Amino acid sequence: MSMDFGYDVVTAEEYERQRLLYGPLADSVRKLIAAGLRTDVDEDTVRNAQASIEAVTEMLERRQRSANVMLHEVTGRPVVWSNPVIGLRNAIAPPMEIHHEDDGRCWSEFALGAAYEGPPGWVHGGICALVLDHILGEAASGGLTQPKFTGTITMRYLRGTPLGPLRAEALIDRTEGAKTYARGSLSDADGATVEAEGVFIVPAWARDAG
Amino acid sequence: MSMDFGYDVVTAEEYERQRLLYGPLADSVRKLIAAGLRTDVDEDTVRNAQASIEAVTEMLERRQRSANVMLHEVTGRPVVWSNPVIGLRNAIAPPMEIHHEDDGRCWSEFALGAAYEGPPGWVHGGICALVLDHILGEAASGGLTQPKFTGTITMRYLRGTPLGPLRAEALIDRTEGAKTYARGSLSDADGATVEAEGVFIVPAWARDAG
Repeated sequence: MSMDFGYDVVTAEEYERQRLLYGPLADSVRKLIAAGLRTDVDEDTVRNAQASIEAVTEMLERRQRSANVMLHEVTGRPVVWSNPVIGLRNAIAPPMEIHHEDDGRCWSEFALGAAYEGPPGWVHGGICALVLDHILGEAASGGLTQPKFTGTITMRYLRGTPLGPLRAEALIDRTEGAKTYARGSLSDADGATVEAEGVFIVPAWARDAG
Repeated sequence: MSMDFGYDVVTAEEYERQRLLYGPLADSVRKLIAAGLRTDVDEDTVRNAQASIEAVTEMLERRQRSANVMLHEVTGRPVVWSNPVIGLRNAIAPPMEIHHEDDGRCWSEFALGAAYEGPPGWVHGGICALVLDHILGEAASGGLTQPKFTGTITMRYLRGTPLGPLRAEALIDRTEGAKTYARGSLSDADGATVEAEGVFIVPAWARDAG
């Protein structure tokens, strides 16, 4: 299957330059999101903060890229820095860093803080689903090198997932024609909290092009 | 079933004061997230932006609330402003505004932009799951007035969900003892893109207390 999605190739050196520039920028926005959640400073300070944020936004909007997906010249994988789960440049993303083993398994260790909270102290169930959908998709698509879309996915919540350090992992169970069956789990230090299984499908346009 | 989770009650007037103060603050952070995703300004400007963001964060961190869940004195519903789906104060949240009909149905119309993108032009499948898990939970729990946790949830992806204006809706299919079966969908202007069904469970501590 072709990996050519029409992406620009980025050199290892340019990748590293951008990573060191934009990674800390998004990290600073992540800390701002957390600070804003529960701030209790006086009204004038809130309004001053808002005005400063709007001025920074205006600075960053002065020049924008048209799209943000590049193909890494060494790994051959898409660099999806705007992705809401793994995106280095997306402050919504924790971000998860996905590790790919030679046997196709994927895993990630990451932490979720107050911005991902549902019931007090616990990760929002939908955030567990977001993380698991992503990592099952990574396993099913060979690290996003193959076009695969989620067909169905089921989450089984075994118990609450606490805020803090977590681990997600996924693997391919089997492949039948255009369908890839993947499964995985989200865990804390005491074991699995949520299990997932899903069917990922090669879109018709990619099957026709095969 | 008791709605007493130990939350502070907020008056309608104080709710409105905080809504008008913190809503625009979080909106400004949402615009900053979007601006940071694809900015292509020079390195010095990026570093200046980062320094300004860190200064604002420090301002907002000077005084923080210990928790953020309040019970609205008029609606009797928890005010979950830090929630990652509906939270007025959480810049990760779109935020969805959930409408509750008298017959128990819930719906929300909202828009998802570039920060929620998976494949180019399409909403990340896990974001669809996040949104659907939340709205099914709203239906199952009577607008979060009853303690209910997701047991299992299945998403069926009918086609891609485009970025832009969307609608989510959910209802209770049936209740069997501690289990509430809910279903719903995410739609664009042409109809459903993702369907979901889930089982939501009253936790043992709430059953014992009943």
